[in-house]
Amino acid sequence: MFFASDNAGPVHPAVIEALAAANRGYASAYGTDALMDGVRARIREIFEAPEAAVYLVATGTAANSLLLATLSKPWETIFCTPMAHIHEDECNAPEFYSGAKLTLVPATDAKLTPTALHAAIAAEQSRGVHGPQRGPVSLTQATEKGTLYTLDEIAALTATARDFGIRTHMDGARFANALVSLGCTPAEMTWRAGIDALSFGGTKNGLMGVEAAVIFDPALAWEFELRRKRGAHLFSKHRYLSAQMQAYLADDLWLDLAARANANLAHLVAGLRALPDCTLAWEPAANLVFARLPRRLHQRVRAAGASYYVWDGDPDHGDPDELLLARFVCDWSLPRAEIDRFLSLLAD
Amino acid sequence: MFFASDNAGPVHPAVIEALAAANRGYASAYGTDALMDGVRARIREIFEAPEAAVYLVATGTAANSLLLATLSKPWETIFCTPMAHIHEDECNAPEFYSGAKLTLVPATDAKLTPTALHAAIAAEQSRGVHGPQRGPVSLTQATEKGTLYTLDEIAALTATARDFGIRTHMDGARFANALVSLGCTPAEMTWRAGIDALSFGGTKNGLMGVEAAVIFDPALAWEFELRRKRGAHLFSKHRYLSAQMQAYLADDLWLDLAARANANLAHLVAGLRALPDCTLAWEPAANLVFARLPRRLHQRVRAAGASYYVWDGDPDHGDPDELLLARFVCDWSLPRAEIDRFLSLLAD
Amino acid sequence: MFFASDNAGPVHPAVIEALAAANRGYASAYGTDALMDGVRARIREIFEAPEAAVYLVATGTAANSLLLATLSKPWETIFCTPMAHIHEDECNAPEFYSGAKLTLVPATDAKLTPTALHAAIAAEQSRGVHGPQRGPVSLTQATEKGTLYTLDEIAALTATARDFGIRTHMDGARFANALVSLGCTPAEMTWRAGIDALSFGGTKNGLMGVEAAVIFDPALAWEFELRRKRGAHLFSKHRYLSAQMQAYLADDLWLDLAARANANLAHLVAGLRALPDCTLAWEPAANLVFARLPRRLHQRVRAAGASYYVWDGDPDHGDPDELLLARFVCDWSLPRAEIDRFLSLLAD
Amino acid sequence: MFFASDNAGPVHPAVIEALAAANRGYASAYGTDALMDGVRARIREIFEAPEAAVYLVATGTAANSLLLATLSKPWETIFCTPMAHIHEDECNAPEFYSGAKLTLVPATDAKLTPTALHAAIAAEQSRGVHGPQRGPVSLTQATEKGTLYTLDEIAALTATARDFGIRTHMDGARFANALVSLGCTPAEMTWRAGIDALSFGGTKNGLMGVEAAVIFDPALAWEFELRRKRGAHLFSKHRYLSAQMQAYLADDLWLDLAARANANLAHLVAGLRALPDCTLAWEPAANLVFARLPRRLHQRVRAAGASYYVWDGDPDHGDPDELLLARFVCDWSLPRAEIDRFLSLLAD
Repeated sequence: MFFASDNAGPVHPAVIEALAAANRGYASAYGTDALMDGVRARIREIFEAPEAAVYLVATGTAANSLLLATLSKPWETIFCTPMAHIHEDECNAPEFYSGAKLTLVPATDAKLTPTALHAAIAAEQSRGVHGPQRGPVSLTQATEKGTLYTLDEIAALTATARDFGIRTHMDGARFANALVSLGCTPAEMTWRAGIDALSFGGTKNGLMGVEAAVIFDPALAWEFELRRKRGAHLFSKHRYLSAQMQAYLADDLWLDLAARANANLAHLVAGLRALPDCTLAWEPAANLVFARLPRRLHQRVRAAGASYYVWDGDPDHGDPDELLLARFVCDWSLPRAEIDRFLSLLAD
Repeated sequence: MFFASDNAGPVHPAVIEALAAANRGYASAYGTDALMDGVRARIREIFEAPEAAVYLVATGTAANSLLLATLSKPWETIFCTPMAHIHEDECNAPEFYSGAKLTLVPATDAKLTPTALHAAIAAEQSRGVHGPQRGPVSLTQATEKGTLYTLDEIAALTATARDFGIRTHMDGARFANALVSLGCTPAEMTWRAGIDALSFGGTKNGLMGVEAAVIFDPALAWEFELRRKRGAHLFSKHRYLSAQMQAYLADDLWLDLAARANANLAHLVAGLRALPDCTLAWEPAANLVFARLPRRLHQRVRAAGASYYVWDGDPDHGDPDELLLARFVCDWSLPRAEIDRFLSLLAD
Repeated sequence: MFFASDNAGPVHPAVIEALAAANRGYASAYGTDALMDGVRARIREIFEAPEAAVYLVATGTAANSLLLATLSKPWETIFCTPMAHIHEDECNAPEFYSGAKLTLVPATDAKLTPTALHAAIAAEQSRGVHGPQRGPVSLTQATEKGTLYTLDEIAALTATARDFGIRTHMDGARFANALVSLGCTPAEMTWRAGIDALSFGGTKNGLMGVEAAVIFDPALAWEFELRRKRGAHLFSKHRYLSAQMQAYLADDLWLDLAARANANLAHLVAGLRALPDCTLAWEPAANLVFARLPRRLHQRVRAAGASYYVWDGDPDHGDPDELLLARFVCDWSLPRAEIDRFLSLLAD
Repeated sequence: MFFASDNAGPVHPAVIEALAAANRGYASAYGTDALMDGVRARIREIFEAPEAAVYLVATGTAANSLLLATLSKPWETIFCTPMAHIHEDECNAPEFYSGAKLTLVPATDAKLTPTALHAAIAAEQSRGVHGPQRGPVSLTQATEKGTLYTLDEIAALTATARDFGIRTHMDGARFANALVSLGCTPAEMTWRAGIDALSFGGTKNGLMGVEAAVIFDPALAWEFELRRKRGAHLFSKHRYLSAQMQAYLADDLWLDLAARANANLAHLVAGLRALPDCTLAWEPAANLVFARLPRRLHQRVRAAGASYYVWDGDPDHGDPDELLLARFVCDWSLPRAEIDRFLSLLAD
């Protein structure tokens, strides 16, 4: 009954097999391996972006930070929600790499709105050299609250950014989960909707630790390469990153794994909706959900071994009927039986 | 006939097996996995340092940069040789992480000497607040030229540093090769000789991409952890770093692989010494050697498929008898027959 | 009728005289001039802080940024209001110098409250290494809205900070205005109320460009000195900073000038209060006030030559009766007759 | 008998008068004062550069660091001599502002040579993304050793830089001294010789603390403005910087002061040359000289009150006849009688 995160599960066996298969003889180092040529070509194909710059790094924070640094200047501010991973969970890495600061645009469901974004952008740079200058927008798809932007919503946000001459980054740590849920193409969810650069996640969806940085404007490629090396994120034995990504993209494994995770979540959500004491905080659309449950239910399932984060409040002490907000994440490997066991415990 | 680098070979099969073995169920993320507990305990045991702080990162540049940043302040200067990897091959990463600058201490064989080090340290900080302040010393063992510091030499350098109240870092990308060559213990080559922090290499010696940062003063541990996260070098699925390091240390695999690489190099060196036209630039003591060979020999072996770096000059054009300096590196996986084939080509 | 800012007026003639008096012969450079010895002693005396470290810089942003950098670490966050000068008007300088980020604590009148501050501090660092760590609090006295903290309010905020083990900085660009208004001693408004470091403003109160950084914990002095030099803020011909500060402190000129500025503001406020169409946004307590006036009044006085900032809205177009918020600042040099002329224009 | 530095003398009385004259009424802040319009126009006229961007800062280190940051990227290296002020005396400020590192090009008289510069530039960037990339060249005119580049020498260096596609900065802390000595025009010594950006010194030549940053490519202007503000180097009461520079340029005061300082130095040098025990280390051409004198002479003149820096060795202890290198600087204000008194003491 593990719902704590999608970064704690195993990798898909095909990934281990790919590593073993790649483990023969000498391979050119530092990203010049032949496997990477294949990965680059495949990502360009998937994204229908034959010119896109494609690089691999090992952590999502590295992908986000390096891309945002490449899109910004150190006297700018980056626009994101208060729940953005880049603000809450990266220990100042985006600021370290970019030198820029972050402007938090009000949001409750972790989704930027064009109105709020427009107001936030307009408010900056009204004081000439005194305030920070307008830097890129960063949005997360699927969001940190498990919600999704529609294609129209993405397009409206990037249009707002473009009105001010600024670019948009997508933190796609759960890109595949969003894509499967929306049923659109990668191109539609990114550059066709105005996205300039993407952190294309693999780690939360079945890899050991590989994320692709995809930059749709190839003029930024060399700067990204230098930033990656200077950040100590260029792997010498790069083929082992390439091999993982190769396996991920082969036979649509990435889509398959995301579909499994989403289906797990949908199964969990259906169960939660059936509980009289449970309310969902936001409309779940990918592989995670925030739900409010009475303290006594939390105590019961946690005592039985369920693992997840209670977002506010103390699950152990207080009024048994008080509702506490918790986050439940399903990864691709979660057995359906575990979900059912969890739901039965809640329902008893 | 691949002598270009020890970062291009395969990983040992035991590493792939360890990854597969680790790939079961959920594991606590971000370095709190149970495998890491074992790795930490084992490294402390190997180094006879029960209090040492131990962290894993994926690149040698990350280990070096994060450790140097932890040992220094942004208004200081770090002392190293002009051949140091941190100066030549890390695209300003040490400066990026630390804010400090580097002072190059003259050396020809990539080895600091106490006299030159003392002079360099003494020369800094003579101008109060105007010049950079004295920061840590960084030495590489085995060096970038394939030479080694004896234990006494290390102790003399760290004593010099300590006379000025500064600390010493060891870049141990080829730590195991040096250790096997010297036939000493890890403790003797580090903290007993006055080393304060170590980049303990795994990648060049049979791993995919894992280096341990070992800090002998545990008071610096928390700062290192924060710097690692802020640098985007903390892995969520950390168990796959742990598993590699576990396999590396089990049954002394790391020592076995280094011994193989060193033996390969010794075999190559014996052959080179027998060539009338070849001279060795420095006394090789680990798994790499710099040798001067006539251009015509370079042309012959490269035409036959040998791969290595010619350090100065153009191998393709010029006087056939001119001596060109080249670097030859042997990794653990290099077949002895390849070395013999290479030597026969040279000898013909 | 100049109410735009207190950074646009002339310096007091005594300052020019002090510069002329200092302009004789050679003087030791880089802050070691004899005048600085006197300034340091005098500031320690005024603050009843015989151990305080005292340094001069030329801009308020330099004082704020260098002090915050000295009080913080690059993986921390600094707590301030959304109206703080360090957030709004310093083009990322505090982030540049410190590496830290800023956490905006909700406030409407530019004053931190213990409750909101406690909540903001408590919310950080709940995620271990993932979020930023808790860094210093920065409060502005007098605030950017012209309001004041009482001594008890300051003490309550610093106590809140100290409960979390963090320190408090005071941006005292208008320190003298606040002090005169509260009628307390410098020690009472700073270290006795728990302040750890102070940007002691001179520029807005009659100097050309001199601010003192006052650090009550002398252990931080050397780091500040190095940061000042590394930031290019150490003056070679430092005596000309010292001379200005000497004149400022002599015969309580600084208090006299602040009293004049405050009296000017009080006179203006009395007139504004008498206007039927005018409302004050916050209770003015120093030398600036925010007031809402109908657009037609703005148009009238600006046409007559009044100069000040309209904070929101377009003074030139729209409903004549719409209330627009404007900021009015009085400096020490403003002639009383100009205020009266401005008030008559409004009253007509 | 003060020969220690040209940063310790008084400012010219005309500067104090200009400050007093500027001290009337309100003036637009942050560099938008009317005086600055005049200064900008005058500098453009003097440099025959009608498009040049012109900014004022208060320290030479600020001018150098901000200009080098504007000309470079954080993954580059800046080429300079080992004696360069930016390397030796700015406590990592150039690295702090730019993120770049410095490559020290061998020189003995503080002058870059095209051959050594070419070799140093060629040696960088030969390792792709691994080493730092080639950044700007920085040369100092007059140099830190008191020597001068001829116009041809400057042109040869900038041509070398341009061959590699990189730009050249001139640290002109003693620009006027060099100009007067060479007898050329400002344009000839800068952009006509290929200089891209200049730190145009005022502080060492009679001002309190004002340097102009002159950028001949106006496309870089806005970035410089943002860097200046972010570095906390933008003055609110900017008119007092403008006024100093206005006085400096009026009636060729700057050239007059430099001529006086140079004449003082020439007088001193003539005397030193006449001494049997004295040798000059480099050919002096501006307002400073390095000379070797026996320890006993140092002891004699210092006992009599002479003030200057002994560059190596202990003036107080050792063989009386040992030659010690010392630096003697003359500023514009040095009385000729003081030089004569000093020379008589030496000659006795």
